[in-house]
Amino acid sequence: MKLLNAQSENFQAELEALLAFETAQDPKIDQIVADICADVQQRGDAAVIEYTNRFDGTCARTLADLTLSQDDLKNAFERLPENVQTALQTAARRVESYHRRQKMESWHYLDEDGTLLGQKITPLDRVGIYVPGGKAAYPSSVIMNAMPAHVAGVGEIIMVVPTPKGERNDIVLAAAYVAGVTKVFTVGGAQAVAALAYGTQSIPQVDKITGPGNAFVAAAKRRVFGVVGIDMVAGPSEILVIADGTTPAEWVAMDLFSQAEHDEIAQAILIATSQNYLDEVKAAMDTLIEAMPRRAIIEASLGNRGAFILAENLDRACEIANYIAPEHLELSVEHPQQWAEKIRHAGAIFMGKYTSESLGDYCAGPNHVLPTSRTARFSSPLGTYDFQKRTSLIQVSEDGAQKLGKTASILAHGEMLTAHARAAEFRLKD
Amino acid sequence: MKLLNAQSENFQAELEALLAFETAQDPKIDQIVADICADVQQRGDAAVIEYTNRFDGTCARTLADLTLSQDDLKNAFERLPENVQTALQTAARRVESYHRRQKMESWHYLDEDGTLLGQKITPLDRVGIYVPGGKAAYPSSVIMNAMPAHVAGVGEIIMVVPTPKGERNDIVLAAAYVAGVTKVFTVGGAQAVAALAYGTQSIPQVDKITGPGNAFVAAAKRRVFGVVGIDMVAGPSEILVIADGTTPAEWVAMDLFSQAEHDEIAQAILIATSQNYLDEVKAAMDTLIEAMPRRAIIEASLGNRGAFILAENLDRACEIANYIAPEHLELSVEHPQQWAEKIRHAGAIFMGKYTSESLGDYCAGPNHVLPTSRTARFSSPLGTYDFQKRTSLIQVSEDGAQKLGKTASILAHGEMLTAHARAAEFRLKD
Repeated sequence: MKLLNAQSENFQAELEALLAFETAQDPKIDQIVADICADVQQRGDAAVIEYTNRFDGTCARTLADLTLSQDDLKNAFERLPENVQTALQTAARRVESYHRRQKMESWHYLDEDGTLLGQKITPLDRVGIYVPGGKAAYPSSVIMNAMPAHVAGVGEIIMVVPTPKGERNDIVLAAAYVAGVTKVFTVGGAQAVAALAYGTQSIPQVDKITGPGNAFVAAAKRRVFGVVGIDMVAGPSEILVIADGTTPAEWVAMDLFSQAEHDEIAQAILIATSQNYLDEVKAAMDTLIEAMPRRAIIEASLGNRGAFILAENLDRACEIANYIAPEHLELSVEHPQQWAEKIRHAGAIFMGKYTSESLGDYCAGPNHVLPTSRTARFSSPLGTYDFQKRTSLIQVSEDGAQKLGKTASILAHGEMLTAHARAAEFRLKD
Repeated sequence: MKLLNAQSENFQAELEALLAFETAQDPKIDQIVADICADVQQRGDAAVIEYTNRFDGTCARTLADLTLSQDDLKNAFERLPENVQTALQTAARRVESYHRRQKMESWHYLDEDGTLLGQKITPLDRVGIYVPGGKAAYPSSVIMNAMPAHVAGVGEIIMVVPTPKGERNDIVLAAAYVAGVTKVFTVGGAQAVAALAYGTQSIPQVDKITGPGNAFVAAAKRRVFGVVGIDMVAGPSEILVIADGTTPAEWVAMDLFSQAEHDEIAQAILIATSQNYLDEVKAAMDTLIEAMPRRAIIEASLGNRGAFILAENLDRACEIANYIAPEHLELSVEHPQQWAEKIRHAGAIFMGKYTSESLGDYCAGPNHVLPTSRTARFSSPLGTYDFQKRTSLIQVSEDGAQKLGKTASILAHGEMLTAHARAAEFRLKD
């Protein structure tokens, strides 16, 4: 792991190098995805079945073979051990409760001329949730994507999840059950994204697609953006821990590991105000790494992109955090709320030593889909609001039309848009 | 103008054909834009000056020659006739007042275990507003883009506007003055977008870029998306008027013209419940067109993409509107609120005969930047919320860590993420 000193002359340059990440899209992947999308748009079900059989090693004959009903989801749930059932339900309930507070409501008011102005809130009609299959099968991701849509009041939540060689993951399907998913198609890849975006004979067209996926899925989402809405195209996951030395070093070490174990390009950074503490955490990591099943991934991730930063004080640490705008920020310090005040840019802030990021990943309540790669400077966690939209409401009174009409007329003439001006002038009495 | 009958067998197919619009990006434009962006990223000011002098026919030597201060904006405002000054101020004040109601506030709560959950709202630090120059110079667009950022509390609002041959538009600069713009650079095109996205020696890097532009600007915005946030890439503007026959036919005719006069690919559609009324509006259009300075554009637009639709009743008209998900929807009917209830998808709803779209375009209060091309199914008007972002807050209490830790541990083991589980387990007392 690299060691940076915030007081060194080259610090800013070193920090920029540490955060740099090449996000260029691969033109070969783009071409393959373009072909698949065009084919699915044209041939519908037949194309989806062909690609699924080819890429996932299945032998489906019709889309019915790739369709799961509510009953299938319920059965998957019931096959699980009771403690897992309870854990899924607890997580779903807490996520639901938090996301209810995010729900937007319509409003309107009358101005002094009796003109009504407002904002009407409506849920999306139908959304698609992409869930990766195979080795990275995350039930928590199902809950985090589907529950906000459910809370928003979306009419139909369609989930797609590939099942390589036909193997279904009961926990993933059970998560869909507790999170209010309407229907599941066991298809994945660009073909699943295209089917949701354009609709096929059996897969209904949706209005928005969310959820993580591999490079093909990301390229397909970019391609269909505009036809449907998409959530962000996420970069590698990141954590920044700011520690004042009061949290046990082992706890912080494990929090860094929990980020690093995601994949080789995940990023874990620790800022502390004393070299001693950095040394303690390093020693703890050296011990704890032995027992980690994903040791190779953790070592690669920390070696590639991990760093310790020594900062002169917590004020400086917060400044650095605002530059990094991390996806996950742990303020593992005393009086964390006072320091959280100073944070302007972060996806989520985990405050105090008891708040490990992993509690937030699964069940604290807030969403675990967060802006990565410094995009917290301008974007937000996935939320209920992503499955609602606003419509402006304007009802100008006869009186209002007199005043507004004169203003609109002057400005429209200023823009040389005569019809705009005339439309306003027609509503004037004099 | 086409005439469609909602009761005909082919109606749905005809409607889809009417709405179809080719949005494919031009690979030649993409390549030019890619080169410009890379050059600006590398050479900064020097590249911006070169492209500006070449494309805009200016002869700037340094970026200072392309920079306007607050004083320059104020002077532009003071050169305007008093009625235009007042119109700009009235519009700005009404837009500000509406957008204040959209401002999001932070919140948090404690759950039964003393765990704090919340959402912190912060404005973006710095945004860029792109304003087209030349023939399509719209001061209203300056107000509609800059005011929400100003209301959100954005620290710096940087505007870019090309000034072909050095000609500055006083109304546009005056609009920047009343809307709270911090600084203006008289540069445009892909080079302006790239400068805002990457920053140069003189032009500061922003966090988000909004505002309309030509195909080069749109391609540049797509390219820098991810480095900075962008607003939507807008399609052609559209209006759908639903009329019950109680609004004077001339008024509706002029409202259709006011959409059509934007450009040849704008779309204006009227749905009415009687053929008689459609005939009256058509007759009014035939008369009114004579006096329209932008007659050629209006005729091209209506000929290419305009339509009359005869619907059996207003319920059916609302159903059709929900399919179209129009950018602008005029409910030019009696009791418009009752019909607005039935609308699920629209950018803005203009209710009642006094509410011409043009009043909303300039000064009613709501934003005139609205989702086009059926994207109102999943997106919203530009608003104050586009210049704020959310950060999740989590502070788990010692008690909370006991309960949440067990749930997180079970789910993390289910996902084979051992470090996630261990991080939660470290916080357990037993």
